[in-house]
Amino acid sequence: MEKKYEIVVLIGSLRRGSFNRMLANTLPDLAPEGMAITLLPSIGAIPHYNSDTQEAGFPQEVLSLSSAIKKADGVVIVTPEYNYSIPGALKNAIDWLSRVPDAPLAGKALAIQSASMGVFGGARAQYHLRQTLVCLDAIVLNKPEIMVGTVQSKVSPDTGKVFDADTRAFVGKQLVALALLIDKLR
Amino acid sequence: MEKKYEIVVLIGSLRRGSFNRMLANTLPDLAPEGMAITLLPSIGAIPHYNSDTQEAGFPQEVLSLSSAIKKADGVVIVTPEYNYSIPGALKNAIDWLSRVPDAPLAGKALAIQSASMGVFGGARAQYHLRQTLVCLDAIVLNKPEIMVGTVQSKVSPDTGKVFDADTRAFVGKQLVALALLIDKLR
Amino acid sequence: MEKKYEIVVLIGSLRRGSFNRMLANTLPDLAPEGMAITLLPSIGAIPHYNSDTQEAGFPQEVLSLSSAIKKADGVVIVTPEYNYSIPGALKNAIDWLSRVPDAPLAGKALAIQSASMGVFGGARAQYHLRQTLVCLDAIVLNKPEIMVGTVQSKVSPDTGKVFDADTRAFVGKQLVALALLIDKLR
Amino acid sequence: MEKKYEIVVLIGSLRRGSFNRMLANTLPDLAPEGMAITLLPSIGAIPHYNSDTQEAGFPQEVLSLSSAIKKADGVVIVTPEYNYSIPGALKNAIDWLSRVPDAPLAGKALAIQSASMGVFGGARAQYHLRQTLVCLDAIVLNKPEIMVGTVQSKVSPDTGKVFDADTRAFVGKQLVALALLIDKLR
Repeated sequence: MEKKYEIVVLIGSLRRGSFNRMLANTLPDLAPEGMAITLLPSIGAIPHYNSDTQEAGFPQEVLSLSSAIKKADGVVIVTPEYNYSIPGALKNAIDWLSRVPDAPLAGKALAIQSASMGVFGGARAQYHLRQTLVCLDAIVLNKPEIMVGTVQSKVSPDTGKVFDADTRAFVGKQLVALALLIDKLR
Repeated sequence: MEKKYEIVVLIGSLRRGSFNRMLANTLPDLAPEGMAITLLPSIGAIPHYNSDTQEAGFPQEVLSLSSAIKKADGVVIVTPEYNYSIPGALKNAIDWLSRVPDAPLAGKALAIQSASMGVFGGARAQYHLRQTLVCLDAIVLNKPEIMVGTVQSKVSPDTGKVFDADTRAFVGKQLVALALLIDKLR
Repeated sequence: MEKKYEIVVLIGSLRRGSFNRMLANTLPDLAPEGMAITLLPSIGAIPHYNSDTQEAGFPQEVLSLSSAIKKADGVVIVTPEYNYSIPGALKNAIDWLSRVPDAPLAGKALAIQSASMGVFGGARAQYHLRQTLVCLDAIVLNKPEIMVGTVQSKVSPDTGKVFDADTRAFVGKQLVALALLIDKLR
Repeated sequence: MEKKYEIVVLIGSLRRGSFNRMLANTLPDLAPEGMAITLLPSIGAIPHYNSDTQEAGFPQEVLSLSSAIKKADGVVIVTPEYNYSIPGALKNAIDWLSRVPDAPLAGKALAIQSASMGVFGGARAQYHLRQTLVCLDAIVLNKPEIMVGTVQSKVSPDTGKVFDADTRAFVGKQLVALALLIDKLR
């Protein structure tokens, strides 16, 4: 049976032990009824954006990413903050997505999550990301905003997931809100 | 004879025919007395930041970039705007620079320039870049702000430089202001 | 007969000869079928936000503004940029609106327009405004973005309106997009 | 004997029991050798910026504020965050300062502090404030950044000051850094 809400998750960190990846890993557990959540492949294999490269043909990784997003009903971006802004590798993936002819993020429901070891939980990256997503015409959920501070105390390296109950409940609420946004946009 | 102001230029675009590269190419012509301007190698060969990679050792390209900046008296970043923010590849280079132990940008005088085919001249990228550079503790020049709009009408593909007289004069003023900032920080 | 889209317009400038007010004055001419556009009273009479004042009772101007927005189907904010950000008086009106119990902007369709004598057309104010409106949970239209540069050459002091045909057409498109957004949110 | 560093403090909140005012009240206790710290009068009496008002003459409150800043060696802005940005009343004061002929903030050393009851400590207001201060050409200290979270647990309503030792130490370090910045700019 087909799920009503097919969600893909874009992760902004490349390292194996990433806390943000652990947050992303947790999402399928928290999905509301009718929501299927799939983690997208790492963006680490996408080359730096270069319009000379683009003229020679979009990289396969970009086309696959674009296609997966295009088919989905919604997107969750889960990302660390690097230097008060978006990680370069994540911004690069978005820069490529902005050039693909079928504009996969345009009109797409999108939620942002971030996690950090400090208290801000990656907030500064989120507002820069929102500005960029205006350009791509994604429909970004306002609330609840998920900024997981001191994430190192809320995840289990064994399971590779978030165990903290408050965080899980809060993230679950965002997924419900994302489903409602998808319904509105239909 | 040693120059009083050794300036290195970091370029945010990777494509061969980049308008921002042409703007950067023009800077040595506009340097005030005593200023030497050197374009840094392309940031295109720097891998995506990944702390797993970092643990295995900083990439040579990052160490070279860091070392060149560390030795300089000042830095000019010349960059396009991608999707209302910093190009991913440029942000990635800065993400690496933020991890290098000797903090090459800390306390360094820095000027930003951007160019675009539209009227904004890359302004949105500059304010995101400024926020990131607070994190790296660079001392960013306030004025004059160089945002070159409709750059395609101001450059010559033959010379690979900006020919527009007003733009050249304005950019020259920023280089003078950068020299004054360097003097203050000494 | 009741109009399908009742829109109220909040103006960020207080001066009599405001170019942004002229832009706002033009909106009723450009309204698509079924849209009624009403300019809200000046925000100049709203006192500075102070929670001590709030405890003594919300000012009547705030309650009227809140009520007018609450009843509307959508909001257009038309504002100049002051010092690369939102004018203080406009931000102050929004600060009050954020405290009113019935949260008039929450879930409300909203479009932003700005005009300036320079080339940027107030763009920097718009992105700060978008960040603030995330907090108030307004649903801000992504596109088209209306940033009217060199506005002094596009308005007639006699009519107090924008005469420039391209600008009028572009603004009209935003109003159509706002109507579509309102439909989606219903 | 004249102090080496005359600092004036601009407070972004108007309410009597303001936590940010308590933070400002604490600054004289924490001033390094040779630094005199004076709190500026409330900005609450400054009317909303309106260029019609300006043409009739700058309000006396604006001229006094401008003059006090002009004479000082440095400025500290202590402010809450309202709706993810600068409080309207504070932005309004800055909007006036940007119009005064003698440009009191241009080239002036400036430090930002913010406090909030939440964990972010007003961070979002600070980055918007930094963007605005680029326009006014203030020289804003990068580090340390003072964002006092859960401030309600760190102040004493009896003394009207911050008692938390870590916060006091950290704020003291910023004042030392401000003195160094003033020295550099001389």
